[in-house]
Amino acid sequence: MALAHKGLDFEPIAWRAVEKERIARSGGGTVPVLVDGDRWLRDSWQIAVYLDDRFSARRPLFGNAAVRAKVRFLDHWTTSNLHPLVFRVVAGEMVPRLAAVDQDYYRERTLGRFGKPLEDLVADPETALGLLRRSLTPLEASLAESPFLGGEAPDYGDYVVFGAFQWARVASSRQLVEPGSAIDGWVERLLDAFQGFARAQPAYRDLESSR
Amino acid sequence: MALAHKGLDFEPIAWRAVEKERIARSGGGTVPVLVDGDRWLRDSWQIAVYLDDRFSARRPLFGNAAVRAKVRFLDHWTTSNLHPLVFRVVAGEMVPRLAAVDQDYYRERTLGRFGKPLEDLVADPETALGLLRRSLTPLEASLAESPFLGGEAPDYGDYVVFGAFQWARVASSRQLVEPGSAIDGWVERLLDAFQGFARAQPAYRDLESSR
Repeated sequence: MALAHKGLDFEPIAWRAVEKERIARSGGGTVPVLVDGDRWLRDSWQIAVYLDDRFSARRPLFGNAAVRAKVRFLDHWTTSNLHPLVFRVVAGEMVPRLAAVDQDYYRERTLGRFGKPLEDLVADPETALGLLRRSLTPLEASLAESPFLGGEAPDYGDYVVFGAFQWARVASSRQLVEPGSAIDGWVERLLDAFQGFARAQPAYRDLESSR
Repeated sequence: MALAHKGLDFEPIAWRAVEKERIARSGGGTVPVLVDGDRWLRDSWQIAVYLDDRFSARRPLFGNAAVRAKVRFLDHWTTSNLHPLVFRVVAGEMVPRLAAVDQDYYRERTLGRFGKPLEDLVADPETALGLLRRSLTPLEASLAESPFLGGEAPDYGDYVVFGAFQWARVASSRQLVEPGSAIDGWVERLLDAFQGFARAQPAYRDLESSR
């Protein structure tokens, strides 16, 4: 979304979570990774800051320091609150569909991060969904008053939070929010943005129904 | 903090939570209320927006729509996440020190809002403090990277969150965060702001030790 926002051409490269050596030049073992000429970058925040500085004449992702500090809060809020709960909601459907090597990776990672086996963590997705919806209270209230976290148009604050919803959309049949909610309308607007860039990724539900 | 930020003169008026008739002209029964000439306003968000519009030539509280939408998120996050937990941490010390009529008010309000008697709600402030500190994760991480949520200088986003800490400071002996943490440093900077405007309110600990 950050690349589309900046209007930059790019080529997405498919990658398995276990293929650490393929991204070793980034300095880490997780995606996203950006390769810009002979420069390798990792970590979504570092990449977004890099893109905004390097292509400063294009539509800004942040605007100024007051926006950037608040987007960083949204970023940390998404990582610490939403991602663990989204994982508990979606992993039960997501993990069994992965390649066997990636399944093993996610099982080990779950044990290390949550201290319990994947099967235990995903055993009650409805409870996780309830906790997730409760933690979405400030997002729902804010988007009831403003079309985007960026105001009238989206900025990087929208994209960091939207990532959790796009993840759930491609990985699971579950609806994170009620249809017709303010968040639901905002997700739809972001799926439409940049000529339907995010919507071009097939939803889990669509894949299931075409099986 | 919003009035001090805008550099406006004002006279604070002491008020008891039960004195609803004194603020009836505001259209509601809760503070803050702002009286500007013959205009009465209520609700901290509405007051901040009013001040920024009416005194637009002075240092902005928001700056632009992208900042305002994100500050509103911080505002809703503070109200929905921090305030209920801060209440559970501080009310055990706070309520018994209030005038009898206000104690009754808080006891009724607690029963209505949380569905349990005050004594039950405040019975385990350490657990509430643990939950609060966990929910402060994104704030701590953000402030480790930026002096203020407003960037290099505070804006209304800082003040909405800081309000929860100032409340705890005047109402309770408990430390919401560890000394030396990023949040602790940020609270100290905001207590120093505007020639120590917020610090001029005596802390609970100072009142206790001077008894």
